[in-house]
Amino acid sequence: MLTDLQRRAAELDAADPLAPMQGHFALPAGRIYLDGNSLGAFQPALLQVASATLHEQWRDQLIAGWNEAGWFEAPLRVGDLIAPLIGAGPGQIAVCDSTSVNLLKAVDAMCQTQPERSVILAQGDNFATDSYMVQALARLNLRLSVRYFVGDDELRSHLSADDVACVLLSHVDYRSARKFDMAATTALIHAHGARVVWDLSHSTGAVAIDVVGAAADAAVGCTYKYLNGGPGAPAYIWIHPNWIDGVTPALPGWMGDARPFQFKRDYAPHPGIRRMLCGTPSILNLNVLEAALAVWDGLSLAAVEAKSQALSEWFLACVDALISDPQLRLASPASADQRGSHLAFAHPHAYPVVQALIARGVVGDFRAPDLIRVGFAPLYLSYADVLAAVQALADVLVTQDWNQPQFQARGAVT
Amino acid sequence: MLTDLQRRAAELDAADPLAPMQGHFALPAGRIYLDGNSLGAFQPALLQVASATLHEQWRDQLIAGWNEAGWFEAPLRVGDLIAPLIGAGPGQIAVCDSTSVNLLKAVDAMCQTQPERSVILAQGDNFATDSYMVQALARLNLRLSVRYFVGDDELRSHLSADDVACVLLSHVDYRSARKFDMAATTALIHAHGARVVWDLSHSTGAVAIDVVGAAADAAVGCTYKYLNGGPGAPAYIWIHPNWIDGVTPALPGWMGDARPFQFKRDYAPHPGIRRMLCGTPSILNLNVLEAALAVWDGLSLAAVEAKSQALSEWFLACVDALISDPQLRLASPASADQRGSHLAFAHPHAYPVVQALIARGVVGDFRAPDLIRVGFAPLYLSYADVLAAVQALADVLVTQDWNQPQFQARGAVT
Repeated sequence: MLTDLQRRAAELDAADPLAPMQGHFALPAGRIYLDGNSLGAFQPALLQVASATLHEQWRDQLIAGWNEAGWFEAPLRVGDLIAPLIGAGPGQIAVCDSTSVNLLKAVDAMCQTQPERSVILAQGDNFATDSYMVQALARLNLRLSVRYFVGDDELRSHLSADDVACVLLSHVDYRSARKFDMAATTALIHAHGARVVWDLSHSTGAVAIDVVGAAADAAVGCTYKYLNGGPGAPAYIWIHPNWIDGVTPALPGWMGDARPFQFKRDYAPHPGIRRMLCGTPSILNLNVLEAALAVWDGLSLAAVEAKSQALSEWFLACVDALISDPQLRLASPASADQRGSHLAFAHPHAYPVVQALIARGVVGDFRAPDLIRVGFAPLYLSYADVLAAVQALADVLVTQDWNQPQFQARGAVT
Repeated sequence: MLTDLQRRAAELDAADPLAPMQGHFALPAGRIYLDGNSLGAFQPALLQVASATLHEQWRDQLIAGWNEAGWFEAPLRVGDLIAPLIGAGPGQIAVCDSTSVNLLKAVDAMCQTQPERSVILAQGDNFATDSYMVQALARLNLRLSVRYFVGDDELRSHLSADDVACVLLSHVDYRSARKFDMAATTALIHAHGARVVWDLSHSTGAVAIDVVGAAADAAVGCTYKYLNGGPGAPAYIWIHPNWIDGVTPALPGWMGDARPFQFKRDYAPHPGIRRMLCGTPSILNLNVLEAALAVWDGLSLAAVEAKSQALSEWFLACVDALISDPQLRLASPASADQRGSHLAFAHPHAYPVVQALIARGVVGDFRAPDLIRVGFAPLYLSYADVLAAVQALADVLVTQDWNQPQFQARGAVT
């Protein structure tokens, strides 16, 4: 059977239109990396860009780099490379700050467009920072309050109170990979007079997204996951053109001012998304991210999504064929159409399983309390990689004695 | 006379205890860089650190870098390198976000410690982003309002109303270089029951600072000026240990949570300054900044300040000796004790003067409406540089015909 699977993996790889993309990335030898949904992989081309930024730009141009090397324009220039990946138009995305900071800006902006309403509706099981930032906004802005929901029924029932100003949703759930239908959910929210902010951190670069087509109101996302910008690369923010010129940024730093070098006492927002810039942007990060995004030029988002789904379906097929551990349970939607680009499996010994996999060179991650999470970055993973990962998982599950003391402890996990 | 000045410059350079520091920096040939107060210079050692971060850390360790390469600890580890430069203790500084974002966090935190008071007192002529961010805080937090003052008399009169929660002050003014006496001003503010947040952007790395000795409440600062972290390097924030554990961050991102990998719905701040982290920090920036700060190890702040003052005094002496243009007027305090590490000169043709200086390789900057600004980074400038800069200024002032049409326009200036 393993031979059959290996033959099938080879066929899938041979037929993979994205297979040539693997040549852009450098992964450590002997590592199968299923954590690109958390931190994407490195591209050798980036070193030269970092070097040029340090030497030809900073060292040689010094302060003149702000004009001559295009530093001022970098946040929107890099945004224009992300725009086609989420269905936004040119000039509509600013790359700046962190996802956390941009969440606050986006939700605040949307609440401004619904001044008669005061409720921020948030997912009770969303990523922690999404919850923290809306709580922070409500703490600062006494007009606002936060309500939580879990599941579609609760979403509908909260919306029907018609007092929701803004809903914050993660397009793809960081744990389960459950994916919202963006167009249908946006339409539901709009039908109740509320705005929606989409957190695209776990979908950008793996899932076909069309924020304009879905009539979304605002979105934020991360660039160090499937966009491979490097650890802590800056985040992005998109606000629909219908709204952007009517909102005052929550964090109106000088870089978002219409005329930052007039040094006025009172802020006047720059037209368009540039107002969402706050302080001085990191040029080294922006340049490295810009270079990391070059790999997407000309790629079809549909092809990216198709490979993402095929990889996760292939993982499940290999699990079916090779693993019979009754304690391993899929904790993601069964249908690829309803998932992002990772899978979660519940297992009572999830933490030591993940550690044992890492020891075998298969890098996934653990999410409390009991999830094994494996991600499928469509640009650099092969079907053979996926098969080898499942083989390792099968091996771990049949050879470990879970009664050994080292598997009983649950340490701090990152 | 020029020969005398050259001889004197050579003597000053020969006696300069910081002269060996120039070897750490790489400045473009033929450039005299008097804008280190805006963007500090490059150190060749940084390229290797950037390369190691990209290769040995990101490429080779991937997600494991968060633990194995010390990424999680980087914001406070780098903060510990800044601490001795401002008189803070170890573990008291977080390096994160931008100065603008940190201003909001610091002023919000200080207002929390004075819940019975509602006024933020701000300098009417402070750097734009300082004004924008307190306005933003007051817009978000309806409890708070902003009042402005200009000059010490107005500061005193506002304080005597005894309703000020927090005063935001720039230690060194970005235009005039006027320096507050931190200890005396902090004592004055405390005598009226208010807190003070010091913006140290224009003093850190050039002026002897002792925030703990001055009993300051909080401080923020920039790392890309005299600290040479590179364009858009992350900022820092310090909150006095007396206050930090009692405040809830304005921007409570997951990286400031006590247990970020428990992914809880409700935020619980990490003990100490780490709570002021928000989103995922940029590792490439932090590592490059850490390497840039190595040059300060073992330096005496008193020696740094002494050279800073000596350079600006030398600039003024050279101006006295070589320039007789009655339109050039010092717009900084005459006494070095009352200044930071730059000088501002008013001149009706300041903009074309700065452009003409740049064309001669002498890089200062223009600040509207009529200021020529020259900064003296004590680690890499020589007395000979300063003399040559004044010679160029003298040359520009006597040879330009200000009636020529190109000197009449005032374009956008950066």
